[in-house]
Amino acid sequence: MSAPAERFFTSRWVPRPAHVRERAGGLADGFRAAGIAAGIKADGAKDLGLLVADAPATVSAARFTRSGMAAAPVVACRERADLAGLRAVVANSGNANAATGAAGYDAAVAMQAAAARCAGVDARRTAVASTGVIGVPLPLDRVVAGLERIGDALRPDGDGDFADAIRTTDQFAKRASLTVELPSGEVRLSAQAKGAGMIQPQFATMLCFVQTDAALDPATADLLLGVTVRRSFDRISVDGQLSTNDTAILMASGASGVRVAPESDDELALGEALDALLRQLALMIVRDGEGARRVGRVVVRGEDGEQVERVARAVANSPLVKTALHGGDPNWGRIAQAVGAALLEATPPTLEIAIEGVPVCAGGAGLPVDEGALAAAVARDEVEYVISLGGAGAETEVFFSDLSHEYVTINAEYTT
Amino acid sequence: MSAPAERFFTSRWVPRPAHVRERAGGLADGFRAAGIAAGIKADGAKDLGLLVADAPATVSAARFTRSGMAAAPVVACRERADLAGLRAVVANSGNANAATGAAGYDAAVAMQAAAARCAGVDARRTAVASTGVIGVPLPLDRVVAGLERIGDALRPDGDGDFADAIRTTDQFAKRASLTVELPSGEVRLSAQAKGAGMIQPQFATMLCFVQTDAALDPATADLLLGVTVRRSFDRISVDGQLSTNDTAILMASGASGVRVAPESDDELALGEALDALLRQLALMIVRDGEGARRVGRVVVRGEDGEQVERVARAVANSPLVKTALHGGDPNWGRIAQAVGAALLEATPPTLEIAIEGVPVCAGGAGLPVDEGALAAAVARDEVEYVISLGGAGAETEVFFSDLSHEYVTINAEYTT
Repeated sequence: MSAPAERFFTSRWVPRPAHVRERAGGLADGFRAAGIAAGIKADGAKDLGLLVADAPATVSAARFTRSGMAAAPVVACRERADLAGLRAVVANSGNANAATGAAGYDAAVAMQAAAARCAGVDARRTAVASTGVIGVPLPLDRVVAGLERIGDALRPDGDGDFADAIRTTDQFAKRASLTVELPSGEVRLSAQAKGAGMIQPQFATMLCFVQTDAALDPATADLLLGVTVRRSFDRISVDGQLSTNDTAILMASGASGVRVAPESDDELALGEALDALLRQLALMIVRDGEGARRVGRVVVRGEDGEQVERVARAVANSPLVKTALHGGDPNWGRIAQAVGAALLEATPPTLEIAIEGVPVCAGGAGLPVDEGALAAAVARDEVEYVISLGGAGAETEVFFSDLSHEYVTINAEYTT
Repeated sequence: MSAPAERFFTSRWVPRPAHVRERAGGLADGFRAAGIAAGIKADGAKDLGLLVADAPATVSAARFTRSGMAAAPVVACRERADLAGLRAVVANSGNANAATGAAGYDAAVAMQAAAARCAGVDARRTAVASTGVIGVPLPLDRVVAGLERIGDALRPDGDGDFADAIRTTDQFAKRASLTVELPSGEVRLSAQAKGAGMIQPQFATMLCFVQTDAALDPATADLLLGVTVRRSFDRISVDGQLSTNDTAILMASGASGVRVAPESDDELALGEALDALLRQLALMIVRDGEGARRVGRVVVRGEDGEQVERVARAVANSPLVKTALHGGDPNWGRIAQAVGAALLEATPPTLEIAIEGVPVCAGGAGLPVDEGALAAAVARDEVEYVISLGGAGAETEVFFSDLSHEYVTINAEYTT
């Protein structure tokens, strides 16, 4: 049984651009993918994925976690891959290959080599990604054995299997297939992502792989990925915990024949589409945050970019704000507390807070509100908080999940 | 019915100094206190406390929250009180008088004046403290009416009522009466504290009032309080949330006739006693953290004081580490993740982690451990994590509570 297809662009915060259409599935032209069960996960679910770009001219760009405990596959990609010319990506779930020392690094390199053989590309043009338990050796033999038989499964519509193979405790798949009307012609975008906070005990990762059949030069790919990652995956928080394995890779096959030149209207249009795609995927990760039932968006405005960022993170990561969101409690006192804690003596006396468009605090003190209407507004799936520190010129946003009993259950009770 | 008296020094991390003895109760000589129900709390529990030092020569020292949203009573104390010469403290629970604007400030000043009248001291020698809901106007009329009748209740053994009057959702009282043998003679210390995380929805505060009948000059009182607060209340975290109302006040009546001179052995001995007192009170706040069932202690060693502090806070405030503590899961991968997130590129490859004395990670990778023994060790009430970043010269500690279902229930379900 398959559920009826849901729309991809479901959030009010990410309108579908007019030049973007949703498709039922399938990779952008020039790509094939597969996902199989290689025995890494104990439950026999799919856990090994391979993505291959057929065109030698494929270009790419990549972004990785900033964690000082970056996992072995992240280190291996940075040190041993041509990140502007990737043609293959191998990814496993069930084991993060993080905090595994020199043996873990060797395993990541061997996984890269085995995937390159299967894909028929150079090892340097192959990226490797892992997601799962931290601190446990990767079962390399199973990965290599899986890669010896995954080649037969590669298909242009293998994106669903590939997306399944990178899931761990994600409650729903996070992928999209889009058609994008550029001034110079039609191109396709496809993407597969995973992430739900820490996903399993001992586990942290957000992965996102994006394919397009537009023709980009590597600098354009890097620019577009860099800008859109900063506006999407960099703006979310499930539990404020930076992962050891975060990886985002954009690959462009050029198979559409549509060339996207730097600083062109095509670049602008593709950028808008990629921006909407990654923002919606990022919101899906928040919505699938461990135990989450609501998504909050905090917008902070002020004069100082660093202050604005600090306040937004403090609010989004406050367990008090997150439990209030969970409980449907329009509790602006907790937001004021988080602002004061973030800014200390720099907290402006002009602090203003609005919840779902209703001003609740001005000049640092509460305003009379229609409490019934406000309570109804914060009981919806998406709740917006706008904080004005005074002044203008700086603004940011963070999307965050609520903190629920299920988060505690997932992270405390499923011990290993 | 009264429960059998428990020992005050219950943590293995705070041994009772040999020159300190526990008493059943009662304030240090020269102090009287009372606590009554003034109708601020809806449930009719005690909610207004007054503490008075009889001797005009009484000196004091105070420390307050660094929050930029400091509550009105904190601002009023800073602006309108002689913090080195306090003779009275008025404190209410049930309302934090925070984020209440100019009207809230005026209410704090009026509360200070009414308490001064009741205590028969100058308003400038009266401190005011509040704890409770944020953003709701203080019911000043009830506070003033309560202060008009609280004077009759002032007693040398009124510390229990006073401590009750500052409690909110604290599950147990946090107070102590100690006898301290100084080289120059015997003095007494008494203290009343409250705090359990955010205590009620919309609520945040830790308060601590300490009395001694030693004779101190104001500079000594300030030095002793400053040093010991940094080693106690500054080293704990329930939910990483800085309060709007945190207040710690030390008052010294001199009634014992024992003078504690600067840089004397008396000062050292009194400092040791005060240090143990405040550390044990701080641990009681963590143990009474909302929903807490265990207390963790993270010790971080390295070369760089700022890095050591950053790592300790990241571990203590990580919801993943806190849920693992709750679940009794010796999950060192989450600690490695928190270290990497805190230090980014500065994370040392030499990272070592030990849990309850058992090395679990060295050189950034896992070590073989007796998992059964480790699981038993982390199932106890207090769990210790030691993190070595490499090098020496810097060390810190943070005490923290676990993250439980009850925390979520308290903060999400008891909506206002």
